[in-house]
Amino acid sequence: MLNKANLQFIGAEAEFSQALTVLFGAPFDGTTSFRPGARFAPQAIRLDSNGLETYSPYQDGDLTDFPIMDSGDLELPFGNPRGALDLIKERALNILNQQKRPFLIGGEHLVTLGALEACAQIYPELRLIHFDAHTDLRQDYLGETLSHATVIRRAHDLLGDQRIYQFGIRSGERAEFVWSSQGHTFLIPYNFAGLEIILEDLKDYPIYFTVDLDVLDPSVFPGTGTPEPGGVSFDQLRQAVTKVCAQSQVVGCDVTELSPQYDPSGVSTAVAAKIIREMLIALHKNKK
Amino acid sequence: MLNKANLQFIGAEAEFSQALTVLFGAPFDGTTSFRPGARFAPQAIRLDSNGLETYSPYQDGDLTDFPIMDSGDLELPFGNPRGALDLIKERALNILNQQKRPFLIGGEHLVTLGALEACAQIYPELRLIHFDAHTDLRQDYLGETLSHATVIRRAHDLLGDQRIYQFGIRSGERAEFVWSSQGHTFLIPYNFAGLEIILEDLKDYPIYFTVDLDVLDPSVFPGTGTPEPGGVSFDQLRQAVTKVCAQSQVVGCDVTELSPQYDPSGVSTAVAAKIIREMLIALHKNKK
Amino acid sequence: MLNKANLQFIGAEAEFSQALTVLFGAPFDGTTSFRPGARFAPQAIRLDSNGLETYSPYQDGDLTDFPIMDSGDLELPFGNPRGALDLIKERALNILNQQKRPFLIGGEHLVTLGALEACAQIYPELRLIHFDAHTDLRQDYLGETLSHATVIRRAHDLLGDQRIYQFGIRSGERAEFVWSSQGHTFLIPYNFAGLEIILEDLKDYPIYFTVDLDVLDPSVFPGTGTPEPGGVSFDQLRQAVTKVCAQSQVVGCDVTELSPQYDPSGVSTAVAAKIIREMLIALHKNKK
Amino acid sequence: MLNKANLQFIGAEAEFSQALTVLFGAPFDGTTSFRPGARFAPQAIRLDSNGLETYSPYQDGDLTDFPIMDSGDLELPFGNPRGALDLIKERALNILNQQKRPFLIGGEHLVTLGALEACAQIYPELRLIHFDAHTDLRQDYLGETLSHATVIRRAHDLLGDQRIYQFGIRSGERAEFVWSSQGHTFLIPYNFAGLEIILEDLKDYPIYFTVDLDVLDPSVFPGTGTPEPGGVSFDQLRQAVTKVCAQSQVVGCDVTELSPQYDPSGVSTAVAAKIIREMLIALHKNKK
Amino acid sequence: MLNKANLQFIGAEAEFSQALTVLFGAPFDGTTSFRPGARFAPQAIRLDSNGLETYSPYQDGDLTDFPIMDSGDLELPFGNPRGALDLIKERALNILNQQKRPFLIGGEHLVTLGALEACAQIYPELRLIHFDAHTDLRQDYLGETLSHATVIRRAHDLLGDQRIYQFGIRSGERAEFVWSSQGHTFLIPYNFAGLEIILEDLKDYPIYFTVDLDVLDPSVFPGTGTPEPGGVSFDQLRQAVTKVCAQSQVVGCDVTELSPQYDPSGVSTAVAAKIIREMLIALHKNKK
Amino acid sequence: MLNKANLQFIGAEAEFSQALTVLFGAPFDGTTSFRPGARFAPQAIRLDSNGLETYSPYQDGDLTDFPIMDSGDLELPFGNPRGALDLIKERALNILNQQKRPFLIGGEHLVTLGALEACAQIYPELRLIHFDAHTDLRQDYLGETLSHATVIRRAHDLLGDQRIYQFGIRSGERAEFVWSSQGHTFLIPYNFAGLEIILEDLKDYPIYFTVDLDVLDPSVFPGTGTPEPGGVSFDQLRQAVTKVCAQSQVVGCDVTELSPQYDPSGVSTAVAAKIIREMLIALHKNKK
Repeated sequence: MLNKANLQFIGAEAEFSQALTVLFGAPFDGTTSFRPGARFAPQAIRLDSNGLETYSPYQDGDLTDFPIMDSGDLELPFGNPRGALDLIKERALNILNQQKRPFLIGGEHLVTLGALEACAQIYPELRLIHFDAHTDLRQDYLGETLSHATVIRRAHDLLGDQRIYQFGIRSGERAEFVWSSQGHTFLIPYNFAGLEIILEDLKDYPIYFTVDLDVLDPSVFPGTGTPEPGGVSFDQLRQAVTKVCAQSQVVGCDVTELSPQYDPSGVSTAVAAKIIREMLIALHKNKK
Repeated sequence: MLNKANLQFIGAEAEFSQALTVLFGAPFDGTTSFRPGARFAPQAIRLDSNGLETYSPYQDGDLTDFPIMDSGDLELPFGNPRGALDLIKERALNILNQQKRPFLIGGEHLVTLGALEACAQIYPELRLIHFDAHTDLRQDYLGETLSHATVIRRAHDLLGDQRIYQFGIRSGERAEFVWSSQGHTFLIPYNFAGLEIILEDLKDYPIYFTVDLDVLDPSVFPGTGTPEPGGVSFDQLRQAVTKVCAQSQVVGCDVTELSPQYDPSGVSTAVAAKIIREMLIALHKNKK
Repeated sequence: MLNKANLQFIGAEAEFSQALTVLFGAPFDGTTSFRPGARFAPQAIRLDSNGLETYSPYQDGDLTDFPIMDSGDLELPFGNPRGALDLIKERALNILNQQKRPFLIGGEHLVTLGALEACAQIYPELRLIHFDAHTDLRQDYLGETLSHATVIRRAHDLLGDQRIYQFGIRSGERAEFVWSSQGHTFLIPYNFAGLEIILEDLKDYPIYFTVDLDVLDPSVFPGTGTPEPGGVSFDQLRQAVTKVCAQSQVVGCDVTELSPQYDPSGVSTAVAAKIIREMLIALHKNKK
Repeated sequence: MLNKANLQFIGAEAEFSQALTVLFGAPFDGTTSFRPGARFAPQAIRLDSNGLETYSPYQDGDLTDFPIMDSGDLELPFGNPRGALDLIKERALNILNQQKRPFLIGGEHLVTLGALEACAQIYPELRLIHFDAHTDLRQDYLGETLSHATVIRRAHDLLGDQRIYQFGIRSGERAEFVWSSQGHTFLIPYNFAGLEIILEDLKDYPIYFTVDLDVLDPSVFPGTGTPEPGGVSFDQLRQAVTKVCAQSQVVGCDVTELSPQYDPSGVSTAVAAKIIREMLIALHKNKK
Repeated sequence: MLNKANLQFIGAEAEFSQALTVLFGAPFDGTTSFRPGARFAPQAIRLDSNGLETYSPYQDGDLTDFPIMDSGDLELPFGNPRGALDLIKERALNILNQQKRPFLIGGEHLVTLGALEACAQIYPELRLIHFDAHTDLRQDYLGETLSHATVIRRAHDLLGDQRIYQFGIRSGERAEFVWSSQGHTFLIPYNFAGLEIILEDLKDYPIYFTVDLDVLDPSVFPGTGTPEPGGVSFDQLRQAVTKVCAQSQVVGCDVTELSPQYDPSGVSTAVAAKIIREMLIALHKNKK
Repeated sequence: MLNKANLQFIGAEAEFSQALTVLFGAPFDGTTSFRPGARFAPQAIRLDSNGLETYSPYQDGDLTDFPIMDSGDLELPFGNPRGALDLIKERALNILNQQKRPFLIGGEHLVTLGALEACAQIYPELRLIHFDAHTDLRQDYLGETLSHATVIRRAHDLLGDQRIYQFGIRSGERAEFVWSSQGHTFLIPYNFAGLEIILEDLKDYPIYFTVDLDVLDPSVFPGTGTPEPGGVSFDQLRQAVTKVCAQSQVVGCDVTELSPQYDPSGVSTAVAAKIIREMLIALHKNKK
């Protein structure tokens, strides 16, 4: 008669067997060097998603029209990045093996690697679309190869040259920009210039789509570990994620790097929840 | 010889008998469902208005040039929305009956209804101009018909079809957008497109003008109960309120939904105070 | 295979059919006049209870030894106090009718009235033990009879003279202290003097036990709507609630008036969770 | 018909002509070296005094029984400490010359000097009772002789040896403690030991009483410029200020060094308001 | 073997003898009338500069390519503005006399005057470029002539008519705008219109360049004493400071009015650090 | 002529060659599971130590009387706890090998292990005195053996039975208390009962002394990762650390678990700095 307390992303109420997309949280920030706190993002997003409507006037779609499930958070060991990635990879493979799409909510950006490894194992032709303020292309950071600052370099280890498309980048070491320009990744600085052309080129490939929310300008998204002034606006990001999700074959995706405690207004969490809503609607609307 | 302590909106120093516009505060947020705190807005706005100049370079006008009075806050019963609205209506009628203009500072958006009822009683041809992020058109909310989420629907009960003009709307249930589109209200989503044309059409009607400040993007106005990313900029709102106040016959107006405690920087309160200054100057400048 | 996300008070994992005590949240603060926010307490307590051990060295007991269930939060209408109380009363009766003990987590103090009405209906000989900084004995507050400031007066309407025992009181109007002293309630100011004697006197009566956490000194519990300097220490309260729960027949109880957002350190929420843990262990340990 | 907005300390509603005690604020912190913000104290105390009862169960007295007036804040020039002190002295003399008692609300501790100068001019036999965490006995601070860190040394310039009684002191330079012990001031470290004996000795002298609220432990009063762990409890201070105000001839007094913005919980402001309430009641109750 | 703890602006590691530009901090806000705190800016900027890359993709330059030194903070007397200015002037002269460029980090805007006096002494043909939200042209403020609100008027006392170029101005008293328009300063309201033309005109003059960061919109820079909605974006300011530093002969400069404590997200501090980085790179790149 | 910016603990100004005690910071919180942030403690303590006097009236001693050096912070890899511990151990050995005493400022409690390993290598008869709210005796935490929750268990691996003295403990799993009681550690719950007797017993042994500041009650020390209500007061801790440092042979020590960002008042940081001051003075005063 009485139900147990539960908490999930608004509108993500499907049963696992019916779901096409399965949300899961990776509350991990064990390699964050500057300001930790991304671990608090998944629960904050779920709580504040209740201040959000399920309906999007932008797309005239409603979360409740689609079979989406929120499978809750992983319990991850701090101080052991590889162990954490293995647990993320395992959850993503569980979802992929049931012909469903994993949608990961970080956590710091390193968590992407676990889900990406799972997708690359299932889809050998995988391409990566990456929205971020930072290059994330270092070979190592203070001697560690698994770090929020190296995650796209590790993705390159896995996928190889010319399979990674980076947008919005406005911060990194000179050496990272140089390395990218030597044919290793496509890097569009500052904004989403050329996104539509690239989506057309990629339309036959399976896509992993990773959104580091610090691609946004800190005016609208102050709640993040390393705020970088000069980013894109909410509407620019909203339109760009909608295009990626609506126009390409996204087989896995994630949203990372919200650190809610740096934004006492709660706006950053609201932004994260609304971007996830728009992504979820675009992933399902007008799809067979 | 020594004066009692007092606190008022900067430059609103007229006596009641001389005043053309009379400010009053309605520190009420009793139906706010997500994040309360709009009750603190009137006092916060008065305090921080002292960091503001009385002069506007945008309009080359100065608050001290015009007869404006700040009549302080009502004391309103929490837990009794209708009782609160009756007190607001009573104060507004007192002001209207002296051929003055009531300028209400909320409080949550429901407070608008009390002042609107007073204006509609005096001006049967009243039209409503409504700036907001949210439709506010629900029939009821958790069974209650008096709510911040139903206030414009209640306004429609009072005014009828095609007398309400909504601008900047970017959030609501699908059913609310559908209901509006069935001829009940004019709804301009996202921005102020067409405002000048509508002002021209309305130039012979008495206008009630309600500004829910969450029409602003949360980057510049994080201090509100339900932040909705994707809103208008400060300059867009400043220009739009100036046009409404300068080019139409505003017989009553309000500014609502500042919740100062969600913005420890104080910027949201500064924004509210500056919008009120611009409205006040536009209401009086070049008017007979 | 994958479970839905859920959130409950730590260690409260029993099924309803097995449970002896059933927690439920009443996220309501619709009559709070000074600083709202108690609505956020139930979810905050659940989240932060995960930083707490289930084991109490004070009592050498562990939450996981006892059949306790967390049945989640009610959805309550803001702006309608009587409607909210009816829903609280209904939930409490559901629990009582299954021979279980309701344990309510507020919310503002008014929520107590709903659970008390349910207990009084089942147990006509009910007595009330009340820990608080405030008398809460006003006949009305701004004309409203249902208010956080009148809740114990309403309890007196229900229970009658000399059935209410108030401890820790240090704030109120003179008239409230006078009224109490006229034989209506037993009022022990400032602390828990005489608690053991009263518990001995009451040992054959069914007890409703309400804890307004602002009985604590604000140094250890700043996160509350109306902080009153000069309160009891954590250890004083911990010992007092343990005595009440261990030595009397508590048939219903509650913990109210945490407003977590006023305490960014999270200490107040940790205090609330730990007091609930100690109460729960004392309610079950060495009981038949 | 409609009153202007005003804000005053709760219960301080007398007209100037009737008042025995006149509150005034000195929102000045221009010499604060570590963390400014005491300028915000007077308005914060007035606002939050509305969450306080006018009745004190400790003394069974009510603010509304006594003729107390709040005459508002001075407007003081930052960057000119002597100019600010002159304005404070002028206001205090205005009050003293009408046979009333000035009650100053700071501001940083330097403001005391202005009111003390006024009282010493009227009462040549003046003694100073000083509650504080800090000695405040430096000859100068970074070359400046007018500073929050030198204020009691300046008081000594004015009053001379053995007329200053310092209580609760727990911080200072070694040289300050040595200088005090050479017969210049009576200094009781850490607490209020011997207060009653000293009050008996001083019962025939006019007293200026200055309370630097940082004498409190920062657990209960974190909102101050230089928090010093190891202070007195709220109840210790409450009892001590009550004794001074009830048992001696206080001709002028002040409460200083609240910096409300360092305490987002508002507890420090509530503490300040409650201490002022207790002082005001003790100053008037059972006095002819 | 072990180094002492030290803290400096990232990449500013040159020895004094090699340095071309020498940073120094003036942690002074003694005349700030509304909200103090700019004193905390220099240390906050140094600490958070460690979250910044030394490389700028905008200019393809790296701080570590250039000889820049951070010489730490001055110790300044609060309550004595002229004394503080003298210490600032002395430090700036020390730097100028070694044929180096002083780069001052405030502090409130008044600190500019000390460095400007030093530069004007060395360079009689000095021009001032001023970015700000506020005119800062008052003759006095509450009777004081040295104030954050008068600093550019004092600069005019020093430099005379038509040597001051103000950009981005959007707040002031009517009289200040009028005074400026009488031929005393060039004042470009709201933005940087015409900056390139003016830089061309000024290319043969020594320039002092002062940036009051509140020229930025408070959405991206909430951490300041007097936030003025309606300012420029980060990218607009970034481009404008780059032009001034790259295209003119800046002999001294400053960045003022960050008050980090009003922005708990830390974004404002990140903005300040990044603007300083861009200025430093533009000052040195492609220069002889 | 001009010095580089530097930042050190107040009064810790000796050169390395002269120093008897060498402070160093370990800004690491990579295994913190609940609320990270202890990484910010060393810099926050240094900054806020400037609000502290160097003189202690409690001990009549002054930091500047003794040869103490602050050697700054280590740069530690997040995500690699063993790597971080090795760097801490190396720094401690460097200091010990010069016949100096390492004084470590954490960071999370795990950092203790690195310094303890160094001391145990030099002093085979080492004993450990441990002040904490938590047992820290788990064998592993989520599978990881190196964790803030296991650090004293790891110390036991190193030192063996009956060499560890735990005081103030009030939280842990039942199994940890049982394990301790089986002869593995001496565990005094809640307070410092018996401390003097134990110090007498240990007076001929080299001591490592570790202070987890969460032994304090959260009322005075809210700024920590896992606040545990019911702890000791500041004066109790001050007296206890003074006794340990004055009456035993402390060859290494640390202070850990300040997380300054959870305490916006800054009181927790002030407490940490003052405890370090008292320890430093007690370590050197009246010592040969």
